Amino acid sequence: MNALFADAKFLEIVRAEGVPHPPSAVANYLPARRVGDLVYLSGQAPFRGKDIAYTGKCGSSVSLEDGKKAARLTGLNLLYSVRDAVTPLDVVACVVGIDGMVNSTPDFTKQSEVIDACSDLLVEIFGDAGKYTRSAVGQVLLAFDIIVEIKMQLLLRDGC
Amino acid sequence: MNALFADAKFLEIVRAEGVPHPPSAVANYLPARRVGDLVYLSGQAPFRGKDIAYTGKCGSSVSLEDGKKAARLTGLNLLYSVRDAVTPLDVVACVVGIDGMVNSTPDFTKQSEVIDACSDLLVEIFGDAGKYTRSAVGQVLLAFDIIVEIKMQLLLRDGC
Amino acid sequence: MNALFADAKFLEIVRAEGVPHPPSAVANYLPARRVGDLVYLSGQAPFRGKDIAYTGKCGSSVSLEDGKKAARLTGLNLLYSVRDAVTPLDVVACVVGIDGMVNSTPDFTKQSEVIDACSDLLVEIFGDAGKYTRSAVGQVLLAFDIIVEIKMQLLLRDGC
Repeated sequence: MNALFADAKFLEIVRAEGVPHPPSAVANYLPARRVGDLVYLSGQAPFRGKDIAYTGKCGSSVSLEDGKKAARLTGLNLLYSVRDAVTPLDVVACVVGIDGMVNSTPDFTKQSEVIDACSDLLVEIFGDAGKYTRSAVGQVLLAFDIIVEIKMQLLLRDGC
Repeated sequence: MNALFADAKFLEIVRAEGVPHPPSAVANYLPARRVGDLVYLSGQAPFRGKDIAYTGKCGSSVSLEDGKKAARLTGLNLLYSVRDAVTPLDVVACVVGIDGMVNSTPDFTKQSEVIDACSDLLVEIFGDAGKYTRSAVGQVLLAFDIIVEIKMQLLLRDGC
Repeated sequence: MNALFADAKFLEIVRAEGVPHPPSAVANYLPARRVGDLVYLSGQAPFRGKDIAYTGKCGSSVSLEDGKKAARLTGLNLLYSVRDAVTPLDVVACVVGIDGMVNSTPDFTKQSEVIDACSDLLVEIFGDAGKYTRSAVGQVLLAFDIIVEIKMQLLLRDGC
């Protein structure tokens, strides 16, 4: 698989997993800003359509498994934002980087494993082009008590 | 209004609100680094001239209103740094992104509203070009106990 | 000194301080991603070879001095990742920015001083080209309880 089939793969996944388009930004900011061949994305949350699907802190009320599900869902929402800015996803040359923030109790240290679920999604969709640079940090709190917030930067194919 | 009048608008606001130039960086780093048409800015704080104007955590000692004032003031300081690197502000094509960090108690979840005050400032100055991608996260602590720290990236007009 | 001798200087330092190459990324992400003349690096940790050399929180179990040593060590590991992507380091035009995250107790406010140790290293190696824009924030927790995590972005010389 390579990025040329990314859009079809994305649509297949959101249909299979029942993930509708997330809500639009409600304040003076943008979900995505294109600068030349780069696309910068605002931090996304684990929405399933209009509803926040996962809240709480990894390490206490939230299992590692739910953290991973939240990270995958957030990744799908990020890709919806990419698609709103540039369609189809096949024009993505590669994922440049992500910043993963995991709502955590002070003793939870598996932030990397949570964010890996987003990594795995991106490789599932884009192949090697989905591999990125990243940070994965714990936060003791996130807005609206969401489990994860993830930002992403992507590079488009030359001239797309 | 559009970005062509941004510099005049900025000067009008800092005069009306009494916001002098913030202090320079005192260590081995830069307030701003230009890379081609992009300008990267270091994280700024709610200085009013040489003094830190707002300290504490949103949710306990600090009201939402003070958090917003701190975010607006930090935005003005960021624009001072832009002006030091490229004058006038009219050469800004758009704001690419910001990272907003809000000093918060564990139960405070309105980080987005705090950072909105910086969004609103940027749209006031640059119009639609002031809309950006962003993240807004809570921090349980920030250096010097400042209420907010905000980073920014801007795009300049082609060839400016 | 200027960036033309950066590679020799880097090798001299890692030999003198006994810092071997850090381990490779073990999940679906990359230590470095080149995009045109920019190099984005994943967050690095204070590894000394395969071992995490510094864990804990600044302000309690960890002294400011150990925090600084961890930041310097993390800077050297970041430069190993740069070298893996583009050799020699002499092709670096400048450091664009870093994001420094410091594992901290709630009363620790000297995050800037900790990250300064990474700044000083970069200026030692690259001269003025090592000065960057930055943020330095406290985190109440970091993956694996490491003292610092630092991300970096670099610009390469035109056409390198």
